[in-house]
Amino acid sequence: MLKLFYTPGACSMVPHIALEESGATYARHPIDFATSEQLTPEYRAINPKGQVPALVTDRGVITEIPAMLGYIARSFPEAQLLPWEDPFAFAQAQAFHMHIATTIHVLFRQISRPEYFADGEAAKAALKAKVPEMSDRYFGIIEDRLRDGRLYVHGDGFTLSDTYLFVFASYLRMGDRGDVAKLPFVVAHRDRIRQRPAVERILAVEGLAEAW
Amino acid sequence: MLKLFYTPGACSMVPHIALEESGATYARHPIDFATSEQLTPEYRAINPKGQVPALVTDRGVITEIPAMLGYIARSFPEAQLLPWEDPFAFAQAQAFHMHIATTIHVLFRQISRPEYFADGEAAKAALKAKVPEMSDRYFGIIEDRLRDGRLYVHGDGFTLSDTYLFVFASYLRMGDRGDVAKLPFVVAHRDRIRQRPAVERILAVEGLAEAW
Repeated sequence: MLKLFYTPGACSMVPHIALEESGATYARHPIDFATSEQLTPEYRAINPKGQVPALVTDRGVITEIPAMLGYIARSFPEAQLLPWEDPFAFAQAQAFHMHIATTIHVLFRQISRPEYFADGEAAKAALKAKVPEMSDRYFGIIEDRLRDGRLYVHGDGFTLSDTYLFVFASYLRMGDRGDVAKLPFVVAHRDRIRQRPAVERILAVEGLAEAW
Repeated sequence: MLKLFYTPGACSMVPHIALEESGATYARHPIDFATSEQLTPEYRAINPKGQVPALVTDRGVITEIPAMLGYIARSFPEAQLLPWEDPFAFAQAQAFHMHIATTIHVLFRQISRPEYFADGEAAKAALKAKVPEMSDRYFGIIEDRLRDGRLYVHGDGFTLSDTYLFVFASYLRMGDRGDVAKLPFVVAHRDRIRQRPAVERILAVEGLAEAW
Protein backbone atom coordinates (compact mmCIF):
# COMPACT_ATOMS: atom_id res chain seq x y z
CA MET A 1 0.00 0.00 0.00
CA LEU A 2 1.25 3.51 -0.77
CA LYS A 3 2.15 5.64 2.23
CA LEU A 4 2.48 9.43 2.18
CA PHE A 5 4.61 11.44 4.59
CA TYR A 6 3.11 14.92 4.82
CA THR A 7 2.88 18.05 6.96
CA PRO A 8 -0.47 19.83 7.38
CA GLY A 9 -0.68 22.86 5.08
CA ALA A 10 2.65 22.15 3.32
CA CYS A 11 3.03 21.42 -0.38
CA SER A 12 2.56 17.74 0.49
CA MET A 13 -1.14 18.61 0.33
CA VAL A 14 -0.81 18.20 -3.47
CA PRO A 15 -0.07 14.44 -3.49
CA HIS A 16 -2.30 14.04 -0.41
CA ILE A 17 -5.32 15.30 -2.36
CA ALA A 18 -4.13 13.37 -5.46
CA LEU A 19 -4.19 10.10 -3.51
CA GLU A 20 -7.66 10.92 -2.23
CA GLU A 21 -8.84 11.75 -5.77
CA SER A 22 -7.51 8.38 -6.96
CA GLY A 23 -10.03 6.47 -4.85
CA ALA A 24 -7.25 4.15 -3.66
CA THR A 25 -6.63 2.94 -0.14
CA TYR A 26 -3.40 4.45 1.17
CA ALA A 27 -1.64 5.21 4.43
CA ARG A 28 -0.42 8.56 5.73
CA HIS A 29 2.03 9.73 8.36
CA PRO A 30 2.32 13.36 9.53
CA ILE A 31 5.76 14.94 9.98
CA ASP A 32 5.94 17.73 12.55
CA PHE A 33 7.94 20.73 11.32
CA ALA A 34 7.55 22.38 14.78
CA THR A 35 9.90 19.77 16.26
CA SER A 36 12.01 19.54 13.05
CA GLU A 37 10.93 15.92 12.68
CA GLN A 38 11.86 16.15 8.96
CA LEU A 39 15.54 16.37 10.02
CA THR A 40 15.60 13.30 12.31
CA PRO A 41 17.73 10.28 11.26
CA GLU A 42 14.51 8.20 11.10
CA TYR A 43 12.92 10.50 8.52
CA ARG A 44 16.16 11.10 6.59
CA ALA A 45 16.33 7.33 6.11
CA ILE A 46 13.07 7.75 4.17
CA ASN A 47 13.90 11.03 2.40
CA PRO A 48 17.58 12.08 2.64
CA LYS A 49 16.62 15.59 1.49
CA GLY A 50 14.72 16.07 4.78
CA GLN A 51 11.60 17.39 3.07
CA VAL A 52 7.97 16.46 2.68
CA PRO A 53 6.30 15.02 0.70
CA ALA A 54 7.71 11.51 0.39
CA LEU A 55 5.68 8.71 -1.15
CA VAL A 56 6.67 5.23 -0.03
CA THR A 57 5.93 2.44 -2.52
CA ASP A 58 6.70 -1.26 -2.31
CA ARG A 59 9.74 -0.60 -4.54
CA GLY A 60 11.12 2.47 -2.81
CA VAL A 61 10.49 6.13 -2.12
CA ILE A 62 9.40 8.73 -4.67
CA THR A 63 10.08 12.43 -4.03
CA GLU A 64 9.24 15.56 -6.08
CA ILE A 65 5.59 16.44 -6.66
CA PRO A 66 5.45 16.17 -10.49
CA ALA A 67 7.06 12.70 -10.33
CA MET A 68 4.52 11.61 -7.69
CA LEU A 69 1.55 12.95 -9.65
CA GLY A 70 2.55 10.92 -12.72
CA TYR A 71 3.06 7.83 -10.58
CA ILE A 72 -0.27 8.16 -8.77
CA ALA A 73 -2.16 8.72 -12.05
CA ARG A 74 -0.57 5.66 -13.66
CA SER A 75 -1.09 3.48 -10.56
CA PHE A 76 -4.85 4.11 -10.51
CA PRO A 77 -5.75 4.47 -14.20
CA GLU A 78 -9.51 4.09 -13.70
CA ALA A 79 -9.56 7.48 -11.92
CA GLN A 80 -8.25 9.19 -15.10
CA LEU A 81 -6.20 11.75 -13.19
CA LEU A 82 -3.70 12.57 -15.97
CA PRO A 83 -3.73 11.77 -19.72
CA TRP A 84 -0.64 9.59 -19.56
CA GLU A 85 -1.62 7.33 -22.49
CA ASP A 86 -1.29 10.35 -24.81
CA PRO A 87 2.41 11.41 -24.99
CA PHE A 88 1.64 14.96 -26.16
CA ALA A 89 -1.12 15.62 -23.61
CA PHE A 90 1.00 14.14 -20.83
CA ALA A 91 3.95 16.34 -21.83
CA GLN A 92 1.68 19.39 -21.72
CA ALA A 93 0.54 18.44 -18.21
CA GLN A 94 4.16 17.89 -17.15
CA ALA A 95 5.13 21.29 -18.57
CA PHE A 96 2.38 22.90 -16.49
CA HIS A 97 3.64 21.12 -13.38
CA MET A 98 7.16 22.32 -14.19
CA HIS A 99 5.92 25.90 -14.39
CA ILE A 100 4.60 25.72 -10.82
CA ALA A 101 7.62 23.77 -9.54
CA THR A 102 10.33 25.96 -11.05
CA THR A 103 8.73 29.40 -10.73
CA ILE A 104 5.95 29.69 -8.09
CA HIS A 105 7.19 27.03 -5.68
CA VAL A 106 10.78 28.31 -5.75
CA LEU A 107 9.56 31.90 -5.48
CA PHE A 108 7.55 31.25 -2.31
CA ARG A 109 10.71 29.79 -0.79
CA GLN A 110 12.19 33.31 -0.98
CA ILE A 111 9.82 34.04 1.91
CA SER A 112 10.16 30.82 3.90
CA ARG A 113 13.82 30.00 3.19
CA PRO A 114 15.63 33.17 1.97
CA GLU A 115 18.88 31.71 3.35
CA TYR A 116 18.86 29.28 0.39
CA PHE A 117 19.36 32.24 -1.97
CA ALA A 118 21.62 34.74 -0.23
CA ASP A 119 23.20 35.66 3.09
CA GLY A 120 22.62 38.87 5.06
CA GLU A 121 19.50 40.52 6.39
CA ALA A 122 19.34 43.18 3.67
CA ALA A 123 19.50 40.59 0.88
CA LYS A 124 16.84 38.45 2.61
CA ALA A 125 14.56 41.47 2.89
CA ALA A 126 15.13 42.20 -0.82
CA LEU A 127 14.27 38.58 -1.69
CA LYS A 128 10.97 38.80 0.21
CA ALA A 129 10.15 42.21 -1.22
CA LYS A 130 10.43 40.89 -4.77
CA VAL A 131 7.90 38.08 -4.30
CA PRO A 132 4.65 39.97 -5.05
CA GLU A 133 5.93 41.29 -8.41
CA MET A 134 7.19 37.89 -9.58
CA SER A 135 4.13 36.10 -8.21
CA ASP A 136 1.94 38.38 -10.33
CA ARG A 137 4.07 37.54 -13.36
CA TYR A 138 4.16 33.75 -12.82
CA PHE A 139 0.47 33.43 -11.89
CA GLY A 140 -0.32 35.83 -14.74
CA ILE A 141 0.80 33.16 -17.23
CA ILE A 142 -1.77 30.81 -15.68
CA GLU A 143 -4.44 33.52 -15.58
CA ASP A 144 -3.95 34.01 -19.34
CA ARG A 145 -4.51 30.30 -19.88
CA LEU A 146 -7.78 30.30 -17.89
CA ARG A 147 -9.11 33.49 -19.49
CA ASP A 148 -11.00 31.56 -22.19
CA GLY A 149 -13.42 30.44 -19.51
CA ARG A 150 -12.26 26.82 -19.27
CA LEU A 151 -13.24 25.11 -16.03
CA TYR A 152 -9.96 23.24 -15.62
CA VAL A 153 -6.28 23.83 -16.43
CA HIS A 154 -6.30 21.59 -19.48
CA GLY A 155 -9.85 22.26 -20.65
CA ASP A 156 -13.12 20.58 -19.78
CA GLY A 157 -11.88 17.71 -17.64
CA PHE A 158 -10.37 17.66 -14.15
CA THR A 159 -6.74 16.51 -13.83
CA LEU A 160 -4.12 16.58 -11.06
CA SER A 161 -2.82 19.80 -12.63
CA ASP A 162 -5.90 21.39 -11.05
CA THR A 163 -4.94 19.99 -7.66
CA TYR A 164 -1.41 21.38 -7.97
CA LEU A 165 -2.68 24.83 -8.95
CA PHE A 166 -5.33 24.81 -6.20
CA VAL A 167 -2.80 24.31 -3.41
CA PHE A 168 -0.40 27.01 -4.61
CA ALA A 169 -3.18 29.50 -5.39
CA SER A 170 -4.43 28.91 -1.84
CA TYR A 171 -1.14 30.24 -0.48
CA LEU A 172 -1.95 33.63 -2.05
CA ARG A 173 -4.36 34.15 0.85
CA MET A 174 -1.36 34.68 3.15
CA GLY A 175 -1.20 38.29 1.96
CA ASP A 176 2.58 38.60 1.57
CA ARG A 177 2.66 37.33 -2.04
CA GLY A 178 0.90 38.53 -5.15
CA ASP A 179 -2.29 40.45 -5.76
CA VAL A 180 -5.33 38.19 -6.16
CA ALA A 181 -7.31 41.11 -7.60
CA LYS A 182 -5.28 40.62 -10.78
CA LEU A 183 -6.16 36.92 -10.92
CA PRO A 184 -9.96 36.55 -11.11
CA PHE A 185 -9.80 33.34 -13.16
CA VAL A 186 -7.19 31.75 -10.88
CA VAL A 187 -9.31 32.65 -7.84
CA ALA A 188 -12.50 31.26 -9.44
CA HIS A 189 -10.62 28.06 -10.28
CA ARG A 190 -9.34 27.80 -6.71
CA ASP A 191 -12.85 28.22 -5.31
CA ARG A 192 -14.17 25.59 -7.75
CA ILE A 193 -11.55 22.98 -6.83
CA ARG A 194 -12.07 23.75 -3.13
CA GLN A 195 -15.58 22.29 -3.48
CA ARG A 196 -14.40 18.84 -4.54
CA PRO A 197 -15.18 16.12 -1.99
CA ALA A 198 -11.57 14.86 -2.03
CA VAL A 199 -10.29 18.35 -1.18
CA GLU A 200 -12.86 18.69 1.59
CA ARG A 201 -11.78 15.38 3.12
CA ILE A 202 -8.04 16.18 3.03
CA LEU A 203 -8.52 19.64 4.51
CA ALA A 204 -10.39 17.92 7.37
CA VAL A 205 -7.61 15.32 7.80
CA GLU A 206 -4.98 18.08 7.88
CA GLY A 207 -7.05 20.09 10.38
CA LEU A 208 -7.51 23.00 7.99
CA ALA A 209 -11.20 22.85 7.06
CA GLU A 210 -11.90 26.16 8.81
CA ALA A 211 -8.72 28.00 7.81
CA TRP A 212 -8.76 27.17 4.11
CA MET B 1 8.84 16.16 -38.05
CA LEU B 2 9.92 17.53 -34.68
CA LYS B 3 11.66 20.91 -34.72
CA LEU B 4 13.80 22.28 -31.91
CA PHE B 5 14.40 25.96 -31.25
CA TYR B 6 17.72 26.29 -29.44
CA THR B 7 20.58 28.65 -28.63
CA PRO B 8 24.19 27.38 -28.76
CA GLY B 9 25.47 26.59 -25.29
CA ALA B 10 22.12 27.24 -23.56
CA CYS B 11 20.13 24.64 -21.63
CA SER B 12 18.42 23.79 -24.95
CA MET B 13 21.49 21.60 -25.48
CA VAL B 14 19.72 18.99 -23.30
CA PRO B 15 16.82 18.25 -25.69
CA HIS B 16 19.17 18.89 -28.64
CA ILE B 17 21.41 15.99 -27.57
CA ALA B 18 18.31 13.96 -26.61
CA LEU B 19 16.94 14.25 -30.15
CA GLU B 20 20.33 13.22 -31.53
CA GLU B 21 20.46 10.23 -29.15
CA SER B 22 17.00 9.17 -30.35
CA GLY B 23 18.28 8.47 -33.84
CA ALA B 24 15.28 10.30 -35.29
CA THR B 25 15.28 12.81 -38.12
CA TYR B 26 14.41 16.27 -36.77
CA ALA B 27 14.77 19.92 -37.67
CA ARG B 28 16.48 22.67 -35.71
CA HIS B 29 16.39 26.45 -35.68
CA PRO B 30 18.88 28.63 -33.75
CA ILE B 31 17.64 31.62 -31.75
CA ASP B 32 20.15 34.43 -31.31
CA PHE B 33 20.24 35.79 -27.74
CA ALA B 34 22.71 38.51 -28.86
CA THR B 35 19.94 40.21 -30.84
CA SER B 36 17.24 39.20 -28.28
CA GLU B 37 15.57 37.10 -30.96
CA GLN B 38 13.80 35.15 -28.19
CA LEU B 39 11.74 38.28 -27.45
CA THR B 40 10.53 38.96 -31.01
CA PRO B 41 6.81 38.60 -31.78
CA GLU B 42 7.68 35.79 -34.23
CA TYR B 43 9.35 33.70 -31.56
CA ARG B 44 6.82 34.58 -28.85
CA ALA B 45 4.16 33.14 -31.14
CA ILE B 46 6.04 29.84 -30.74
CA ASN B 47 6.92 30.16 -27.05
CA PRO B 48 5.10 32.98 -25.21
CA LYS B 49 7.59 32.68 -22.33
CA GLY B 50 10.34 33.97 -24.69
CA GLN B 51 12.78 31.20 -23.74
CA VAL B 52 14.58 28.33 -25.38
CA PRO B 53 14.17 25.42 -25.73
CA ALA B 54 10.86 25.00 -27.54
CA LEU B 55 9.98 21.72 -29.26
CA VAL B 56 7.47 22.03 -32.09
CA THR B 57 5.40 18.91 -32.75
CA ASP B 58 2.56 18.35 -35.22
CA ARG B 59 0.12 18.91 -32.33
CA GLY B 60 1.68 22.00 -30.81
CA VAL B 61 4.67 23.25 -28.86
CA ILE B 62 6.21 21.60 -25.79
CA THR B 63 8.29 23.64 -23.34
CA GLU B 64 10.16 22.67 -20.15
CA ILE B 65 13.06 20.24 -20.40
CA PRO B 66 11.70 17.34 -18.26
CA ALA B 67 8.45 17.37 -20.28
CA MET B 68 10.42 17.29 -23.54
CA LEU B 69 12.67 14.46 -22.38
CA GLY B 70 9.65 12.29 -21.57
CA TYR B 71 8.06 13.13 -24.90
CA ILE B 72 11.22 12.39 -26.93
CA ALA B 73 11.78 9.08 -25.12
CA ARG B 74 8.18 7.98 -25.76
CA SER B 75 8.22 9.12 -29.39
CA PHE B 76 11.25 6.96 -30.24
CA PRO B 77 10.85 3.92 -27.96
CA GLU B 78 13.37 1.77 -29.82
CA ALA B 79 16.16 4.07 -28.57
CA GLN B 80 15.26 3.20 -24.93
CA LEU B 81 16.09 6.65 -23.63
CA LEU B 82 13.92 6.54 -20.48
CA PRO B 83 12.16 3.60 -18.74
CA TRP B 84 8.66 4.78 -19.59
CA GLU B 85 6.99 1.35 -19.40
CA ASP B 86 7.90 1.04 -15.71
CA PRO B 87 5.93 3.64 -13.68
CA PHE B 88 8.27 3.47 -10.68
CA ALA B 89 11.49 3.72 -12.70
CA PHE B 90 10.04 6.56 -14.78
CA ALA B 91 9.01 8.42 -11.62
CA GLN B 92 12.56 8.05 -10.27
CA ALA B 93 13.94 9.51 -13.51
CA GLN B 94 11.43 12.36 -13.34
CA ALA B 95 12.41 13.05 -9.73
CA PHE B 96 16.06 13.31 -10.80
CA HIS B 97 15.11 15.73 -13.57
CA MET B 98 13.13 17.77 -11.03
CA HIS B 99 16.19 17.98 -8.79
CA ILE B 100 18.21 19.61 -11.59
CA ALA B 101 15.31 21.80 -12.74
CA THR B 102 14.28 23.15 -9.32
CA THR B 103 17.68 23.45 -7.65
CA ILE B 104 20.69 23.66 -10.01
CA HIS B 105 18.97 25.29 -12.98
CA VAL B 106 17.25 27.91 -10.80
CA LEU B 107 20.46 28.48 -8.85
CA PHE B 108 22.52 29.25 -11.95
CA ARG B 109 19.90 31.84 -12.87
CA GLN B 110 21.02 33.78 -9.77
CA ILE B 111 24.14 34.57 -11.84
CA SER B 112 22.54 35.15 -15.25
CA ARG B 113 19.22 36.70 -14.12
CA PRO B 114 19.54 37.99 -10.54
CA GLU B 115 16.83 40.54 -11.33
CA TYR B 116 14.30 37.66 -11.20
CA PHE B 117 15.03 37.25 -7.48
CA ALA B 118 15.61 40.72 -6.03
CA ASP B 119 16.21 44.36 -6.90
CA GLY B 120 19.31 46.40 -6.07
CA GLU B 121 22.98 45.89 -6.79
CA ALA B 122 23.85 44.73 -3.26
CA ALA B 123 21.17 42.04 -3.32
CA LYS B 124 22.25 40.90 -6.78
CA ALA B 125 25.84 40.61 -5.60
CA ALA B 126 24.66 38.59 -2.59
CA LEU B 127 22.68 36.27 -4.90
CA LYS B 128 25.75 35.59 -7.04
CA ALA B 129 28.01 35.16 -4.02
CA LYS B 130 25.77 32.40 -2.65
CA VAL B 131 25.92 30.24 -5.78
CA PRO B 132 29.13 28.26 -5.08
CA GLU B 133 27.93 27.12 -1.62
CA MET B 134 24.51 26.00 -2.87
CA SER B 135 25.97 24.47 -6.03
CA ASP B 136 28.23 22.31 -3.84
CA ARG B 137 25.18 21.24 -1.83
CA TYR B 138 22.92 20.47 -4.81
CA PHE B 139 25.60 18.70 -6.88
CA GLY B 140 26.70 16.95 -3.67
CA ILE B 141 23.38 15.05 -3.62
CA ILE B 142 24.22 13.77 -7.12
CA GLU B 143 27.85 13.02 -6.17
CA ASP B 144 26.52 10.83 -3.33
CA ARG B 145 24.39 8.91 -5.81
CA LEU B 146 27.35 8.25 -8.15
CA ARG B 147 29.74 7.31 -5.36
CA ASP B 148 28.93 3.59 -5.67
CA GLY B 149 30.82 3.59 -8.96
CA ARG B 150 27.81 3.33 -11.27
CA LEU B 151 28.50 4.47 -14.82
CA TYR B 152 25.17 6.22 -15.29
CA VAL B 153 22.70 8.15 -13.12
CA HIS B 154 20.26 5.27 -12.81
CA GLY B 155 22.79 2.42 -12.82
CA ASP B 156 24.29 0.45 -15.67
CA GLY B 157 22.32 1.83 -18.59
CA PHE B 158 22.41 5.24 -20.28
CA THR B 159 19.26 7.40 -20.07
CA LEU B 160 18.42 11.01 -20.84
CA SER B 161 19.03 11.76 -17.15
CA ASP B 162 22.71 11.43 -18.05
CA THR B 163 22.30 13.98 -20.82
CA TYR B 164 20.61 16.44 -18.46
CA LEU B 165 23.35 16.05 -15.84
CA PHE B 166 26.12 16.31 -18.46
CA VAL B 167 24.98 19.71 -19.68
CA PHE B 168 24.60 21.24 -16.22
CA ALA B 169 27.85 19.73 -14.92
CA SER B 170 29.56 21.26 -17.97
CA TYR B 171 28.56 24.72 -16.76
CA LEU B 172 30.73 24.19 -13.66
CA ARG B 173 33.73 24.90 -15.91
CA MET B 174 32.72 28.56 -15.95
CA GLY B 175 34.51 28.99 -12.62
CA ASP B 176 31.95 31.19 -10.89
CA ARG B 177 29.86 28.30 -9.51
CA GLY B 178 30.79 25.36 -7.31
CA ASP B 179 34.02 23.53 -6.67
CA VAL B 180 34.57 20.61 -9.05
CA ALA B 181 37.33 19.28 -6.76
CA LYS B 182 34.51 18.15 -4.44
CA LEU B 183 32.76 16.30 -7.27
CA PRO B 184 35.11 13.66 -8.70
CA PHE B 185 32.28 11.29 -9.64
CA VAL B 186 30.22 14.03 -11.29
CA VAL B 187 33.30 15.13 -13.27
CA ALA B 188 34.11 11.55 -14.33
CA HIS B 189 30.47 11.11 -15.42
CA ARG B 190 30.64 14.36 -17.40
CA ASP B 191 33.83 13.27 -19.16
CA ARG B 192 32.26 9.87 -19.94
CA ILE B 193 29.10 11.35 -21.47
CA ARG B 194 31.20 13.88 -23.41
CA GLN B 195 32.60 10.94 -25.41
CA ARG B 196 29.22 9.85 -26.77
CA PRO B 197 28.93 10.31 -30.55
CA ALA B 198 25.60 12.15 -30.20
CA VAL B 199 27.20 14.67 -27.83
CA GLU B 200 30.14 15.11 -30.18
CA ARG B 201 27.82 15.82 -33.10
CA ILE B 202 25.68 18.37 -31.22
CA LEU B 203 28.71 20.23 -29.86
CA ALA B 204 29.90 20.51 -33.47
CA VAL B 205 26.47 21.75 -34.64
CA GLU B 206 26.39 24.35 -31.85
CA GLY B 207 29.96 25.44 -32.68
CA LEU B 208 31.31 24.38 -29.29
CA ALA B 209 33.48 21.35 -30.07
CA GLU B 210 36.65 23.20 -29.06
CA ALA B 211 35.27 25.09 -26.08
CA TRP B 212 33.53 22.16 -24.35
